[in-house]
Amino acid sequence: MMARFSVTYWLDAPNADEARQRASDIALEQTVEIPRDIVPAGYVEDEILGRVEDVRPGTDERGGFLAEVSYSDDDVGGDFLQLLNVVFGNSALKTATRVEAMTLTDAIGAICPGPRYGSEGLRLRTGRSTGPILMSAIKPVGLRTRELADLAHQFALGGMDMIKDDHGLANQHTSPFSERLNACVDAVGEANAKSGFNTVYVPNITGPANQILDHAFEAQEAGAGAVMLAPALVGLDVARTLSADPAFALPIVSHPTFGGANVITPTTGFSHGYYFGLLSRLMGVDAVVYPNFGGRFGFSEAECRSIADHCSMPFGNLKAILPAPGGGMKLESVPAMREVYGDDVIYLVGGALLREKVDLPGACRRLIDAVRR
Amino acid sequence: MMARFSVTYWLDAPNADEARQRASDIALEQTVEIPRDIVPAGYVEDEILGRVEDVRPGTDERGGFLAEVSYSDDDVGGDFLQLLNVVFGNSALKTATRVEAMTLTDAIGAICPGPRYGSEGLRLRTGRSTGPILMSAIKPVGLRTRELADLAHQFALGGMDMIKDDHGLANQHTSPFSERLNACVDAVGEANAKSGFNTVYVPNITGPANQILDHAFEAQEAGAGAVMLAPALVGLDVARTLSADPAFALPIVSHPTFGGANVITPTTGFSHGYYFGLLSRLMGVDAVVYPNFGGRFGFSEAECRSIADHCSMPFGNLKAILPAPGGGMKLESVPAMREVYGDDVIYLVGGALLREKVDLPGACRRLIDAVRR
Repeated sequence: MMARFSVTYWLDAPNADEARQRASDIALEQTVEIPRDIVPAGYVEDEILGRVEDVRPGTDERGGFLAEVSYSDDDVGGDFLQLLNVVFGNSALKTATRVEAMTLTDAIGAICPGPRYGSEGLRLRTGRSTGPILMSAIKPVGLRTRELADLAHQFALGGMDMIKDDHGLANQHTSPFSERLNACVDAVGEANAKSGFNTVYVPNITGPANQILDHAFEAQEAGAGAVMLAPALVGLDVARTLSADPAFALPIVSHPTFGGANVITPTTGFSHGYYFGLLSRLMGVDAVVYPNFGGRFGFSEAECRSIADHCSMPFGNLKAILPAPGGGMKLESVPAMREVYGDDVIYLVGGALLREKVDLPGACRRLIDAVRR
Repeated sequence: MMARFSVTYWLDAPNADEARQRASDIALEQTVEIPRDIVPAGYVEDEILGRVEDVRPGTDERGGFLAEVSYSDDDVGGDFLQLLNVVFGNSALKTATRVEAMTLTDAIGAICPGPRYGSEGLRLRTGRSTGPILMSAIKPVGLRTRELADLAHQFALGGMDMIKDDHGLANQHTSPFSERLNACVDAVGEANAKSGFNTVYVPNITGPANQILDHAFEAQEAGAGAVMLAPALVGLDVARTLSADPAFALPIVSHPTFGGANVITPTTGFSHGYYFGLLSRLMGVDAVVYPNFGGRFGFSEAECRSIADHCSMPFGNLKAILPAPGGGMKLESVPAMREVYGDDVIYLVGGALLREKVDLPGACRRLIDAVRR
């Protein structure tokens, strides 16, 4: 028998018997997808068919049950997308079913080497060995490359550790990708030469499926310090492919755009911790952007805390990564964020800083002082 | 000014004023993503910023409002993933917000040539000029290539028009992709030589991000009649890239695995019609698999009817495509399905046929007779 990994699903069910039946349905649906009574005896039934390992009552306000189902490495066959298909393929089409946790096997570790940098590696690269890391974003879409590069320059002079593209910056005629990439790398490099900081520019990687990996390598060759991509748009294997490629040596930041439906209903999709924490680490992402509590999105403090926990909890041999909460952060948010996240966090501050027309570097320094106080 | 396309969102709001405010928030979030009062005057404000065009009361049991927001072609910049990011990027992280409809521009048409085959092309390729098309699936995972190819052979002898891989078939050691591809192409070809049918084999395309397009081309070179892929896993630009590539000449079937959270909550994500119908056509998909009403998933008859409607309604110059409802279809389902779908449909029948151990081709013929009666 091959090693088995297990996935824990939250299920709504009126009693344990029905919960067990629902778990058996999932075990069938996620593997053989044929009626139970015609599953071939022997290898298919013994090895490939999912197996209900445990069903226990839920532990939060949703009630319901937690069901643990195990799957064989043989069902995955070395393919990351097939792993995700086993974890939550067709069953994602069902209501009252949510992925909460999973365990790993050596075979999954072989597919998913995990984040190349993780929290520690990002600290080495940015030179920020302690305390929160600060990241800002150049925007909005529609500014010309010169204007965006100037913003990057000022953010870098102000001491921000990472400066990312807005996730809407693609290849618009006002700022084509290659032009912006090179201009911002230069602008941040010039600022670093003046300031002595190691500020890192993080371009947004998007584009046609047959060019997207090339864009990431172009960013590396141009001297970017990391790349950002949106897994829900570019596909769930792009970050993993890059992080597993010895020729690619940049940290990867993930952006949550387009993927929101996977988490925002508490009884479907994935738990916040699984989706933003564990899945990001499986994909080889080093820092994960998501909407902070108290901003303009509806994530709760508990959900955000869970994301941070899942970014660093033991998970096979996969490195801990940094949560990067954003979405409406202001100076006033700092005390509450410090309470929840401690030091192992990237503060993503966008719009609030862009208000500062007169002295953007000064505004950055005030923010940094408040965060590192 | 550039041409503008519009997206219609369903919004929950207690009154029209708040609905209008929420629509303005979306217009901001989806484009410039900075506070309204610091949006640069001129080009960014006039062209890039989303614009609320209309807010009207909702028309179904959800109540709420329908808000139409227009966006500039310049914001998309020729990138399909950025188009999707404008349609529903960060706003997908909000509850009580659902994408219902959109209009197209010439610039979107240039990015998205749409399905190469569509309904009519699939009929030409399968030789099934009238009536429903029938598709079955070889499974389960864990069978050896010889067994899967034998199933394909029998399905083809029985007159099924299309035979697809189960979406869990990847590169497992029991049936590696290339081995299965060639064996099934041969098995179906031999059956066609005996039967005179034009049955088409449809392999499942998955794999690492740097190989997935190659796998599709390998399928074409091996003589497959179409390919199947799961957009929520492989990424939303893979089908579009293939359908827009003059060197790729196979129809594309999409599978809904992993993407369920995008539709199953009626107040978040995308309407069934948008997600399975319009988005599939934008991606260049020729036939879209989704769970039928009355099977083991919870889609309603109305939702399925809406999917079928959106597969064929006028939508720019994009061809009509075929809905392929599956997921627990039985002989008894045929009358209800005929009522909803008429002739322009692919009946996807998997497990029910696999019950037939003695005379699988005979079971196929009985099903076909029932469907075409």
